[in-house]
Amino acid sequence: MDLTALRTANPEHWNKAAAIRALALDAVAAANSGHTGMPIGMADVATVLFEKHFKFDASNPSWPDRDRFILSAGHGSMLIYALLYLAGDSQVTLDQIKNFRQMGAITAGHPENFLVDAVEVTTGPLGQGISNAVGFAMAEEMQRAHYGRKVVDHHTYVIAGDGCLMEGISQEAIGLAGRHQLGKLIVFWDNNNITIDGTVDLSDRTNQVQRFKASGWQVLEIDGHDPKAIDEAIEAAKKSKKPSMIACKTHIALGHAAQDTSKGHGALTDPEQLQAAKDAYGWTGGPFEVPAEIKSQWEEIGARGKSEREAWEARFAELSQQKQDRFNRAYALEAPKKLSATIKALKKQVSETQPSVATRKSSEMALEVINPIMPETVGGSADLTGSNNTKTGDLGVFDTDNRKGRYVYWGIREHGMAAAMNGMVLHGGVRAYGGTFFCFTDYARPAMRLAALSKIPTVFVMTHDSIGVGEDGPTHQPVEHLAICRATPNTYVFRPADTVETAEAWEIALTAKETPSVLALTRQNLPTVRTEHKLSNMVEKGAYVLAEAENKRQVILIATGSEVSVAMEAKAKLEAEGIGTRVVSMPCMELFAEQDEAYRRKILPAGPVRVGIEAAVRAGGWDRWLLGERGQEKKAGFVGMDRFGASAPAGELFEKFGITAEGTVAKVKELLG
Amino acid sequence: MDLTALRTANPEHWNKAAAIRALALDAVAAANSGHTGMPIGMADVATVLFEKHFKFDASNPSWPDRDRFILSAGHGSMLIYALLYLAGDSQVTLDQIKNFRQMGAITAGHPENFLVDAVEVTTGPLGQGISNAVGFAMAEEMQRAHYGRKVVDHHTYVIAGDGCLMEGISQEAIGLAGRHQLGKLIVFWDNNNITIDGTVDLSDRTNQVQRFKASGWQVLEIDGHDPKAIDEAIEAAKKSKKPSMIACKTHIALGHAAQDTSKGHGALTDPEQLQAAKDAYGWTGGPFEVPAEIKSQWEEIGARGKSEREAWEARFAELSQQKQDRFNRAYALEAPKKLSATIKALKKQVSETQPSVATRKSSEMALEVINPIMPETVGGSADLTGSNNTKTGDLGVFDTDNRKGRYVYWGIREHGMAAAMNGMVLHGGVRAYGGTFFCFTDYARPAMRLAALSKIPTVFVMTHDSIGVGEDGPTHQPVEHLAICRATPNTYVFRPADTVETAEAWEIALTAKETPSVLALTRQNLPTVRTEHKLSNMVEKGAYVLAEAENKRQVILIATGSEVSVAMEAKAKLEAEGIGTRVVSMPCMELFAEQDEAYRRKILPAGPVRVGIEAAVRAGGWDRWLLGERGQEKKAGFVGMDRFGASAPAGELFEKFGITAEGTVAKVKELLG
Repeated sequence: MDLTALRTANPEHWNKAAAIRALALDAVAAANSGHTGMPIGMADVATVLFEKHFKFDASNPSWPDRDRFILSAGHGSMLIYALLYLAGDSQVTLDQIKNFRQMGAITAGHPENFLVDAVEVTTGPLGQGISNAVGFAMAEEMQRAHYGRKVVDHHTYVIAGDGCLMEGISQEAIGLAGRHQLGKLIVFWDNNNITIDGTVDLSDRTNQVQRFKASGWQVLEIDGHDPKAIDEAIEAAKKSKKPSMIACKTHIALGHAAQDTSKGHGALTDPEQLQAAKDAYGWTGGPFEVPAEIKSQWEEIGARGKSEREAWEARFAELSQQKQDRFNRAYALEAPKKLSATIKALKKQVSETQPSVATRKSSEMALEVINPIMPETVGGSADLTGSNNTKTGDLGVFDTDNRKGRYVYWGIREHGMAAAMNGMVLHGGVRAYGGTFFCFTDYARPAMRLAALSKIPTVFVMTHDSIGVGEDGPTHQPVEHLAICRATPNTYVFRPADTVETAEAWEIALTAKETPSVLALTRQNLPTVRTEHKLSNMVEKGAYVLAEAENKRQVILIATGSEVSVAMEAKAKLEAEGIGTRVVSMPCMELFAEQDEAYRRKILPAGPVRVGIEAAVRAGGWDRWLLGERGQEKKAGFVGMDRFGASAPAGELFEKFGITAEGTVAKVKELLG
Repeated sequence: MDLTALRTANPEHWNKAAAIRALALDAVAAANSGHTGMPIGMADVATVLFEKHFKFDASNPSWPDRDRFILSAGHGSMLIYALLYLAGDSQVTLDQIKNFRQMGAITAGHPENFLVDAVEVTTGPLGQGISNAVGFAMAEEMQRAHYGRKVVDHHTYVIAGDGCLMEGISQEAIGLAGRHQLGKLIVFWDNNNITIDGTVDLSDRTNQVQRFKASGWQVLEIDGHDPKAIDEAIEAAKKSKKPSMIACKTHIALGHAAQDTSKGHGALTDPEQLQAAKDAYGWTGGPFEVPAEIKSQWEEIGARGKSEREAWEARFAELSQQKQDRFNRAYALEAPKKLSATIKALKKQVSETQPSVATRKSSEMALEVINPIMPETVGGSADLTGSNNTKTGDLGVFDTDNRKGRYVYWGIREHGMAAAMNGMVLHGGVRAYGGTFFCFTDYARPAMRLAALSKIPTVFVMTHDSIGVGEDGPTHQPVEHLAICRATPNTYVFRPADTVETAEAWEIALTAKETPSVLALTRQNLPTVRTEHKLSNMVEKGAYVLAEAENKRQVILIATGSEVSVAMEAKAKLEAEGIGTRVVSMPCMELFAEQDEAYRRKILPAGPVRVGIEAAVRAGGWDRWLLGERGQEKKAGFVGMDRFGASAPAGELFEKFGITAEGTVAKVKELLG
């Protein structure tokens, strides 16, 4: 392709964009891995966006009212690193660019929000970024409704590729954004017609323009290498009340020998071809060299937002002190001081009244007292509001005419919900929680993993957490999902036994700053087991002695959630036969593992027979507590599931699978010999 | 709603449909759980379909050229049970209907293919059925291309609700069906405007008609209670070269007090309201009573396909014996006799030549010899063909002009691929395998679980199985995915160490009849560790002694995949210091767990220090082999990951995380004291 026309038509623009292209070529070549073609293809769009529209201050990339930029096509990470370096970001130095993808560098293969402040969100798994962006845009609407346009008024920009749009989650995101008319969400589609396997039409012939329009978007179609068209499209998008998709016809790896081919997607490292591409760009700088004039033009762009930020700071200072404090507290993910006392009061009350309720109801009881004192919480459910018990009276429903609403009807979109919640939390000012059936952790899983990986304290309210689901049968009965969540690093998996433990779990989940929480909650009623009020949060210890042996201690029963009351029943039977039995409630294995060895030994002393009870597979982390921590194989057993469930009334299923006091007693006696 | 007009316009049709409605009301009321509204709402569509179009023989519901009926909205299971009972299916008796959702009944809460022959596929998790259906329709096209229209010529019908269409996976299915112009796929959309949380527009305002058209579908819009319109639409759909979506405007829980409300979605058990609905239908039968005349009309419908089946059997008999045998063998999921010898020959060759290749390449080497002798295999990849090494030379690419093609470019659609592969295998005649990066198990997970639950031997080729991914970083580096797959019942998780083990794993995967397989394969090269040719398939044992201690045995190193060669290196170092070390390769924990205790003890005798080595989290099933099976806590250790990975060259990552021979030796010495 002869780039002369492009170069000469807008030389100033061209050189700024060429700087991105040259850096992408050099960094990928140096790393000998990465993706060159996308940064090259989208350099024009990114340049115009940053130069003319993007509200950004390189000297303070995290100020609250900045525009958000989300690279949903995260493999093109050199685009964002090049932009940040050029604009003068203090973290992404030339040295970092040179160490792209190397050990210890913040310029990781895919952009990581926990490494670079200006990276809003970790991307790479396709379709996530565009779905996170829906949450960013929702959070912006909510915050704007609360604090006013003078304090909150920014856009969320996304670059998405064909991969993002082929992933199913994108439809969930598109549907949500259209439904809620998120006018400040602007998606650039890098329409280059290339995927790894070849041209897009090998696998898809969807008319994306029609598809977005079907969900209520404004769609603009432009030449993605024409700076004027890009500028005008962004201008039109900013004016729209609908979310906008700008279909940018681009050439992947523009000007390189691999242009318009699937080869252009990956690492373009051939030195001669690299040089030929640079020549075609009219780029004379050596490797990693950006001519001073171009660099200084970019730094002007990076400084452009400074005055906007300062003006914002002045406007922010005009808010009442109370509003400022609330805003800052929520952005810092600090829980209100009242939270602790509120939880304690609830605990005291339920320890006394000892209700027999499902823990999903317990969760609602906790939320009923939490939501009024934490205006930053935003709840929701993937079309199971009445089952997940996620909606409390005071929230209001988020809608086009009620942006203050704090409850989102996510629809049947577990994955989109999880990703959007992650986006909300990362946007700042919001703590998001959302519900579905625990079994459908499966659908939300890619976003749940990213919450853990990128340190987002989203709360996943997962009800119907075992065969206790009953008649809906094995498709709806989780057996391996506790194992899945517990195997994931940096995730708190709570399986509370009653309302007291549920309230304690919520307190931890809503004070966590870098760890997502999964609350596995029952469909069926459970008795209150924490009948003695304690001020301290026992769930915080992960596990604790719920009931000490009365006779000489021969047995420790370790149980979670609905099986804690099974353990208590079994204990009563065993004690009646003179077999001293300690019951350990273990609502959070991760927190127990974090305790010091002395505490763990105190709870699980060597010697007695240990039986774990959980209506799930043993692979869910049990062997460490049964066989490890000075446990002994001959003295350890497990009462749980080793297969998928079945469709029948819940009580009958617990009988069938032996997850009962009788089954537990039998297991204990077998081990005692 | 006054139903008089509907009743009187087509009384014969009405009564047949009313039988479905009455049975759904009675069965759900008796179970006191379930979903009444959907079977009532779609009774007219189902009646017309079965009466006028559906190729079905109740006396032989599994004959190969039957039409397929997939209830994607699986919660409406009483629709399918009522249809089958009425039509005279021998399994779904009146007694089964009366025991809907009860212990031991085949009429489970959601339809289960392993309980009822006429249920093509387990549904319930929304969006799966419509995506399975894409696989069914693809398999039909492939089989038709191979055997001719006289032997293979049937439709795949789907009922999908709003939930199915909101789930992201539906977009993947819609895109695939449109791309491949699956004209024999006909989807009825139960357009009742109701979800559990309320009206659909609470969460979605997508124009579904436009959306399907955007992906190349024919769309027909009808009144879903008008039998003539239904009939004509099906007629038009059957003529279409494009896949067809028939948007059926229906009333959920038609004629019941809960009609057109979200309440109508669930269990309608109020006796008075139930009776009032029956009255509105003009239904005079008592609970579970179907007037003889109506029942006999339905049985005629159920018998209608008998002559079609017999005619088909005659046509089938005209095929060459070879073609018949091949057809029958593939439908029975019998591997060809040659498979075993072919695998042995490959094993022998690589034991001798000892290539150093990535196991993803080993997998390709296995497929290169397998695909030519197993014409029923269909391969594919979610846009990572060159990385997953799933395409062999002889397959040909499935396309509109090459229905014989055995390779599918699935696009960036891991979830849709997995669900469609499940559908292909359930259709019969096809063994499907498909690849993506192991980390994206997350995206495919709901369909992978259903493969396990509903006993489908799909093969998931998961490459790039650890931090060996290198620079792409933690988003692309699985650490918990082995744990996830191993925690799932009825799943073989293979992590082969070299080409020999990979070939053995493929042999097991392609002979399995009821268990899906996950092959976790490396990106990076590995040495051949099975240098001595053995005729027997060692992977079948799950674990085996790869190298015995030379000095007095003090240590057992247990490793999988890429870490087996690390163990061999560590062994060499330890033996050099006089520390006798056995190396156990454990490519499949599930198969090892299935061996008898004597074998397990032989491989893992009590006494020596045990160290597990796997570049993944210990929660991936390790404690059973380290602490259990007569292991001892003081003598057990693990070399692996306890956090997410990082972006850097692979070799440096293994060093950083200590997953090396040196790290292993250090761990052993620490344990030896």
